[in-house]
Amino acid sequence: MNLTILGCYAATPRTLTNPTAQVLEIKNRMFLIDCGEGTQVQLRKHKLRFSKINHIFISHLHGDHVFGLIGLISTFSLLNRQTDLHVHGPKGIKEMILLQLKLSKAWTGYNLYFDELESDESQVVFEDDKVKVSTIPLKHRIYANGYLFEEKEDPRKLNVAAVEEYGIETCYYNKIKAGHDMKLDDGKLIPNKELTFDPAPPKSYAFCSDTVYHEPVIPIIKDVDVLYHESTFLDSEEHLCERTMHTTAKQAALIAKKANAKKLILGHFSTRYKSMELFKKEAQTVFENVDIADDGKFFDL
Amino acid sequence: MNLTILGCYAATPRTLTNPTAQVLEIKNRMFLIDCGEGTQVQLRKHKLRFSKINHIFISHLHGDHVFGLIGLISTFSLLNRQTDLHVHGPKGIKEMILLQLKLSKAWTGYNLYFDELESDESQVVFEDDKVKVSTIPLKHRIYANGYLFEEKEDPRKLNVAAVEEYGIETCYYNKIKAGHDMKLDDGKLIPNKELTFDPAPPKSYAFCSDTVYHEPVIPIIKDVDVLYHESTFLDSEEHLCERTMHTTAKQAALIAKKANAKKLILGHFSTRYKSMELFKKEAQTVFENVDIADDGKFFDL
Repeated sequence: MNLTILGCYAATPRTLTNPTAQVLEIKNRMFLIDCGEGTQVQLRKHKLRFSKINHIFISHLHGDHVFGLIGLISTFSLLNRQTDLHVHGPKGIKEMILLQLKLSKAWTGYNLYFDELESDESQVVFEDDKVKVSTIPLKHRIYANGYLFEEKEDPRKLNVAAVEEYGIETCYYNKIKAGHDMKLDDGKLIPNKELTFDPAPPKSYAFCSDTVYHEPVIPIIKDVDVLYHESTFLDSEEHLCERTMHTTAKQAALIAKKANAKKLILGHFSTRYKSMELFKKEAQTVFENVDIADDGKFFDL
Repeated sequence: MNLTILGCYAATPRTLTNPTAQVLEIKNRMFLIDCGEGTQVQLRKHKLRFSKINHIFISHLHGDHVFGLIGLISTFSLLNRQTDLHVHGPKGIKEMILLQLKLSKAWTGYNLYFDELESDESQVVFEDDKVKVSTIPLKHRIYANGYLFEEKEDPRKLNVAAVEEYGIETCYYNKIKAGHDMKLDDGKLIPNKELTFDPAPPKSYAFCSDTVYHEPVIPIIKDVDVLYHESTFLDSEEHLCERTMHTTAKQAALIAKKANAKKLILGHFSTRYKSMELFKKEAQTVFENVDIADDGKFFDL
């Protein structure tokens, strides 16, 4: 699992700061989360093979999270994409994109599916044999969801030395990896845990932006490995949180702590601040394992 | 009159090439022409005081000419713009922008006016005491207009030495600058041309992109000082022009020549080409005074 931050700043794109977009690679799937203006250029700049993106998850319809989507969808067309593309996001996103395609008379050559969200309850929006993605309802000035990405547990790992010692034939290996015990020809039952190792524990990643401090997310992201949480402000600007419906670094850390997250990445910084180290410092008064997002930063998780 | 090219490449924004947008400063007015994705970042990068832009002219609704508009309009809001903003562009542009503002619940704090175009005849879209702007109907895969920017003639310049010699009082100066002759107290009539100099000749700039080779533009831009004309292709790719409705460098030069333009700037290059010097060379086989646009290039006209 790895994460590339394409943009992690609030509000408008600037010369040196990009609005929200990030690419999560998990179990060999590439997911795009949010798509502020300029995201397609950031994808190129960081040399991501973005034709591999088949699912895009949009948190909410504020421009700094979605204005780059129509450009990316159009570029996929110009690049002769054939693979289906799925866009998950708030109700209205389909009309937003289709109207622009209609007016520019630029239909896609690939199938474009919209999964429009309007529920206030967490729901599964993607699931295959390796990964599950669910919404994390957030509280912002506008309908918004975060997303929880969960790896599914791998099959158990074969203990090659053990199965060879017992002389077990290869045709039974898949059954053993699926967790079954093994009966030998002499009738002796070998318990599965003698023949296998535990698989790597499945990992999880939660993206929570934009939102005010909102405790209902805690049970949804409980025990998450990595939490990306917005922290638009420092404590000194906490008074702005209620009106703008954003979070401080300290509040984000409190969510991480209460959810028993293993690691917290802070992002969605207001461009009023010059140094982001203060965000880390403030968060660490509450929760220790804090990292700071930055445009172009790569996290090997 | 000066021109800053923010982007002059066809199709999608890339790391090093930007889609169409340019800023024309003429008679102290700042006009934005087209607004591809990333235009607001280009405006910042080139340190243009873009709050001065009150009129935006959009040629057509293909993404590489308009997908940056919603971002710029939103940014103006975030910057607390108060001044009216006028957007001139093809019918549909109002719906495109208003739907996005509605869905992002982000209304502007300033008045936003749309001047939606659908005529196939040239029409005046802006006029004040210094400048007139008219459409140049183009022929593309979608309804498209270029724009002709014309300075109005300045008042005549006072010949200070002459009016003082004749002892003419200052209260008559404006009348003289407006072109009137002057009757002295002794009844002698002094012709205006003895009291004034010719003003600087008014300048004009024509923007023609995107279009196939289209001779009907010639009478509209006749004798223009500077013609920016798209030249997506070189002669070797002329066969692509009919299907894509674009122009070669040579064809652009032919328009410049037939319109008796003083100078031609080529732009809207396909990103398939590595060097733009070939465009200049090809055009110069037909028309001599050719310059090449480039992102960030400033033309003092």
